[in-house]
Amino acid sequence: MKAELISAGTELLLGEIVDTNAVYLSQQLAQIGVDVYYRHTVGDNLRRLVEVLRLAFDRADVVIITGGLGPTQDDITRQAIAEAAGRSLVRSPQAVDKLREFFARRGRVPTENNLCQAEAPEGAVLLDNLCGTAPGIRLEHEGTVTFALPGPPTELQPMFTTEVMPYLLEMTERRGERLYTRTLLLADIGESNTAEILSDLIADQTDPTIALYASPAQVRVRLATKDADEQAAADRLAAAEAPIRELLGEHVFGVDDDTMESVIGRLLRETRATLALAESCTGGLVASRITDVPGSSDYFLGGVVAYSNDLKQTILGVASEILSTHGAVSSQCAEAMAQGARAAFGADFAVATTGIAGPAGGTEQKPVGLVYVAVADERGVHVEEHSWPGTREQFKRRVSQMALNTLRKRILQTI
Amino acid sequence: MKAELISAGTELLLGEIVDTNAVYLSQQLAQIGVDVYYRHTVGDNLRRLVEVLRLAFDRADVVIITGGLGPTQDDITRQAIAEAAGRSLVRSPQAVDKLREFFARRGRVPTENNLCQAEAPEGAVLLDNLCGTAPGIRLEHEGTVTFALPGPPTELQPMFTTEVMPYLLEMTERRGERLYTRTLLLADIGESNTAEILSDLIADQTDPTIALYASPAQVRVRLATKDADEQAAADRLAAAEAPIRELLGEHVFGVDDDTMESVIGRLLRETRATLALAESCTGGLVASRITDVPGSSDYFLGGVVAYSNDLKQTILGVASEILSTHGAVSSQCAEAMAQGARAAFGADFAVATTGIAGPAGGTEQKPVGLVYVAVADERGVHVEEHSWPGTREQFKRRVSQMALNTLRKRILQTI
Repeated sequence: MKAELISAGTELLLGEIVDTNAVYLSQQLAQIGVDVYYRHTVGDNLRRLVEVLRLAFDRADVVIITGGLGPTQDDITRQAIAEAAGRSLVRSPQAVDKLREFFARRGRVPTENNLCQAEAPEGAVLLDNLCGTAPGIRLEHEGTVTFALPGPPTELQPMFTTEVMPYLLEMTERRGERLYTRTLLLADIGESNTAEILSDLIADQTDPTIALYASPAQVRVRLATKDADEQAAADRLAAAEAPIRELLGEHVFGVDDDTMESVIGRLLRETRATLALAESCTGGLVASRITDVPGSSDYFLGGVVAYSNDLKQTILGVASEILSTHGAVSSQCAEAMAQGARAAFGADFAVATTGIAGPAGGTEQKPVGLVYVAVADERGVHVEEHSWPGTREQFKRRVSQMALNTLRKRILQTI
Repeated sequence: MKAELISAGTELLLGEIVDTNAVYLSQQLAQIGVDVYYRHTVGDNLRRLVEVLRLAFDRADVVIITGGLGPTQDDITRQAIAEAAGRSLVRSPQAVDKLREFFARRGRVPTENNLCQAEAPEGAVLLDNLCGTAPGIRLEHEGTVTFALPGPPTELQPMFTTEVMPYLLEMTERRGERLYTRTLLLADIGESNTAEILSDLIADQTDPTIALYASPAQVRVRLATKDADEQAAADRLAAAEAPIRELLGEHVFGVDDDTMESVIGRLLRETRATLALAESCTGGLVASRITDVPGSSDYFLGGVVAYSNDLKQTILGVASEILSTHGAVSSQCAEAMAQGARAAFGADFAVATTGIAGPAGGTEQKPVGLVYVAVADERGVHVEEHSWPGTREQFKRRVSQMALNTLRKRILQTI
């Protein structure tokens, strides 16, 4: 089943607001296996909106258009659908009554502009809006069903749930096309390496399909299959997941909606262990990610952002000889910082980062991008050295991900 | 000048990631007066991508396509542009060399897949990618200039800045359509309050135009004017800026590309003052923002993320009576944390945050969203109390902004 999404609104084209509706609708449709082939954003311009709608009527089984149902002159969606479908606009007496009631409950009287919201192309069905004044529209036209939904997410989402989703589920079920997915999250490996390791599986893929996605410091492997039967789909996904996990081993750190910080949180909770941090080059980002997880105060004791050498000595107890002999960016310093944090905070695990985030501060021997990460626990300290040139923010992001992944692997060894 | 944006990637149509590139590009183009008429999102499907590109070639002066330049089989942007423009793909020896160098610096060898990234339609110019392997593409074809940029924002944004923006600025300048803007950044005031304060100016606006934009924890006032002469535009903007600054007073914390953290950095540098942090509810976010600024090690000594009460006592020296009598979320504790951090780190200024981020942990007396922020300096401690219910991440973002703004105002008093 092919769908096409259209977002109407000049404010979107100016980048003034993020089109969260498009993301929401894409996710909802993906979940039930409706394929979105195109998504368009068009300004408040009748000619251009009609043009995009006509193309969509030609190509798609389902068209969802969002925005442009308000009471002002900029709101041209009703008119555009009517024109694209070659139908006239008619005013619904029931919808007029509902609008009058809506305003009366607020002690107001609707203007003529407001009453335009009760209009729809001939033959369309008006969809109730429980959270605002603009009714939605459903129009079946030459084999395509078009839904027009209001732009505010607080109105769109309830209307989608009650009026659109049940209709689409019936359509997909009639066609046996419901989609199920499973996503594996990878750390410490790039997209091309992953593609090479999985090349045979990717080349031979049929059902489930296998796709790779790369985002900063993280690669995702997504398996997808369509079935009318949920259990059959789950079995097929599990069978496809096993050989991928075998090939990728401990690179797989989580699935679906997991994040590295939520996985760490789960592991610390399971092992009843606590965590402390000593950050230099990540400047608090590791702590901020750990504390993004609700309930993290149960296992996270705290952290030190030790930018100055003084602090590394006073709070973390790094020996001045280490700083004078090896410097702050050294495996010795990372090790001492991790041990110092573990002792100072009385934590089971402590993670330390020290490196050169740049853009300044690099030398020939210690270039921008050089970083040491240490994890201390009761067994001692594990230190890793890496080099990641890039922007300051990329560097912080990558180091934080690598530090947390190193911690993850150390915790797993204790289980 | 008419532009059309195309985002390539099935993951976008599945709603797995938000298309921040489209927003970024829309904003950048709006800033220089280039009108975006359409924005499209297409999956990793050659036929559909070619179809959209052909339409765009017909209608637009500038086409920017993002994504699909990676090394895997899904990455079809190079091929799609070549096909839409009726040109063949050729491999650039220089780009191959650059790819080999990029990999060599990381101690790796590029695969054949990677080397495909050195291909572009005949007659195209390859654009350097300083932060990744995929070069961008610029192609002039039948009066339309097309740019293909890599999907990861960390690669796209630097490439846009160095390779696309200067080219577009020259185009707009040639056409006398150059847009000049001035943006004022506001803190501690909402969009509707700002609109009310500026209502007369907004109602009477002609040239420069005045527009308000709200983003989390920040409102922007944007003045814009078009002119062939830069000085004339600058004079007009300055004349419009003065009365707005008068009305908004110290709510204006910066202009244009400033961030709260870069403004703080400038103030600390100017006053040769140092900073320390004691964070509880912001969990390291304030430190991470401060350290996002290059060179922040010059004034930022460090911080403590003190999630546990123990840490508040041992490292920050918060008296146990304060914790037992008033609790960790109290003005007394915030005050003691700020003073403790200032003393422990030997800093001129210290900022402390303590509050209830939620979703759990709230009580009737101290509900989720309650927060205390303290700034200590040689004059003593200034404490503020606020209440901001919302999601955990909204809360952290708002509190960090407010804490930094409070610090900004305290530093300004010393100048």
